[in-house]
This record gives sequence, structure tokens and C-alpha cells, in this order.
Amino acid sequence: MLAATCQLLLETGLGGVTVDAVSERAGVAKAAIYRHWRTRSALLLEACLKLGSRRDAPDTGSLRVDLLVLATDLASRLQAASWAAVLPSIIDAAERDKKLAGMHARMHAEFVGTFRSVIERAQAQAELSQDEDPTDVVAAIVGPLFYRRWFSREVLDERFVRNVVDNVLASNRRR
Amino acid sequence: MLAATCQLLLETGLGGVTVDAVSERAGVAKAAIYRHWRTRSALLLEACLKLGSRRDAPDTGSLRVDLLVLATDLASRLQAASWAAVLPSIIDAAERDKKLAGMHARMHAEFVGTFRSVIERAQAQAELSQDEDPTDVVAAIVGPLFYRRWFSREVLDERFVRNVVDNVLASNRRR
Repeated sequence: MLAATCQLLLETGLGGVTVDAVSERAGVAKAAIYRHWRTRSALLLEACLKLGSRRDAPDTGSLRVDLLVLATDLASRLQAASWAAVLPSIIDAAERDKKLAGMHARMHAEFVGTFRSVIERAQAQAELSQDEDPTDVVAAIVGPLFYRRWFSREVLDERFVRNVVDNVLASNRRR
Repeated sequence: MLAATCQLLLETGLGGVTVDAVSERAGVAKAAIYRHWRTRSALLLEACLKLGSRRDAPDTGSLRVDLLVLATDLASRLQAASWAAVLPSIIDAAERDKKLAGMHARMHAEFVGTFRSVIERAQAQAELSQDEDPTDVVAAIVGPLFYRRWFSREVLDERFVRNVVDNVLASNRRR
């Protein structure tokens, strides 16, 4: 049932994932679905967490390389279309629906966790200034990538990703 | 009719704006609406362009101040809820609908134009390195603001906005 939900999410976005549609796709009765998940939101949450599953934090010994690994991985996932095409429908729904906003917050916390581990380890090892707020560093790296995927729809190539990471590190050393 | 469309957009997002709903809100017949706009998309485009209307590019004589003016204005508009709550529904629809994707591209080009004028003027006056691609600078400033509004839902305060602008300028001087 979870696999059917993920498939539907990727194909149609949030709007197309009804309990009826999942029931039909998975070939199980609606009652069986409701036995596992009390609501459509609960089912959606589990499927979304599965789609955006957390990566392990890289630990190459270099902050720059760790950030490049994470940012390159994110850029390629953003361009893989399927997962990235679903997120705007969740963001949109979260603007008006508190349950979905809570679900999105949980997904986002999982997502950001990997970046935070890398950044906080670099701060502990004095590779990055302690004055820097880790959430500012996350925003400076993830923000431009998200912006290019959904807002400007420009290419997310290796040059751009490297430039984003190097600018963040350059401005940190500068201060 | 355009005013009614804008009102509905702000209240319900893109999904709630049907020609029926506009007809009812504006108190005019549907035929009258179709006389002005051939399709729902054409009506939406005009309303969206009106909502996200282009700001004049500031020219204070300092790139830093110009960028701060633009970024502060954007941060406050992002937090004014109404306009910012509509955009995700447009982005989501644009993922699956070519007409709406074209509409979003036009809105985005208008939006980015002001940033580009400020950046290109600074490059012409050698206040900013010519090696920098203006679209990279736009992504580095706008990206973190968009990210905080829609993805991490963190606060967009004066400290954050100043930090984003100063980091972009610091990394440019560093290279």
C-alpha cells in the first residue's frame, strides 16, 4: 500500500493521492488501508518520508568535500524530476492545511539533518567559524539550488553547485 | 473582473480561481469575462502579473545598499502572507501544465529584472567582478529568502537578510 502511494505521488502530485486511488492501485480494500493509517494525511506522511529518505552524512575529513557531496547529491535528486515534482504540491497544501504543514516540517527536519551534522562537526573542529549560525549556512547552500529548480528553472550543473559551496566557504573565511 | 480574480487568488490559491467563481465575485456574466480573456490561463496570467508587480530598481550609488533595499523589500513581501501563499500553487501547477509554466516564467522574468539591473550596473561600474554570472548572484540572494519562507519556514528578519547580502559581497571580493 505504501509503495502504491509513493507511485501515485510521483505520478500525480499530492492532489491525485486519494484513499480510493491507493486502494485501486494496490488492489486492496479501503478498509485495509484505514486499518494501517487512520487518515489520508498519515498515509501521505509515511510515503513522503520514504521518498525523501535521509542520506547519511558524509565524513571525508574536508568540509568542502562533504558539502560538495551533499550539494551534488541534492542537485541530482532535484533534477530527477519525480521527487522534485511532488514537493511543490506539498508546500502548497501546507500553506492552507495545518496537518500537512506539520508533515512537511518533519520531512524538512529529516532533510536538513544531514547538512547540519556536517556543518556542526566542522565547527567543532574549527574548520568553520563558530559565529556562523548553521541554519544560515544551510540556507545559503540549499536555497540557491531550490531556487533554480522551482523558481528560475535554470540548469543545476556542476559549475553552479561548486560555485555555491565555494562562495559560502569564501565568505566564512573572509569574516 | 481583474480585481475579483486577484482577491480570489489571494484567498484560495490557484485552485479556487475558476471562471465561475470570478463571475460570481465580480457580479458579471461569464460571457463578459470570456470577451476580455480567451481562457482561464490568460486571466490568471494578467492577475498574477498584477500581484507580483515589478519594483523599480533602486540606485543609491552603493551596490550593498541597493541589494539591501531589494532583499528587504522581498523579505517583507514574502512575509505578507497573501502573495507568498499563492506562488506555491502556481509553481505546483507549472510542474504539470505547459501554459502555466510559461506564465510562471514570465512572472519570474519580471521579478528577476530588478535584481539584474542593479547587479549589471555594479559590474559596469566595476563595483562587482565582471567574472560573476549575474544569475548566480540573484540565486545567492533570492534563494535563501525563498528557502526560508517556503521550505524551512524560519524567520526572515533583518539580521538574516543583511547576512545574505553581506556574504554574497564578501565572497565576490574574496575571489
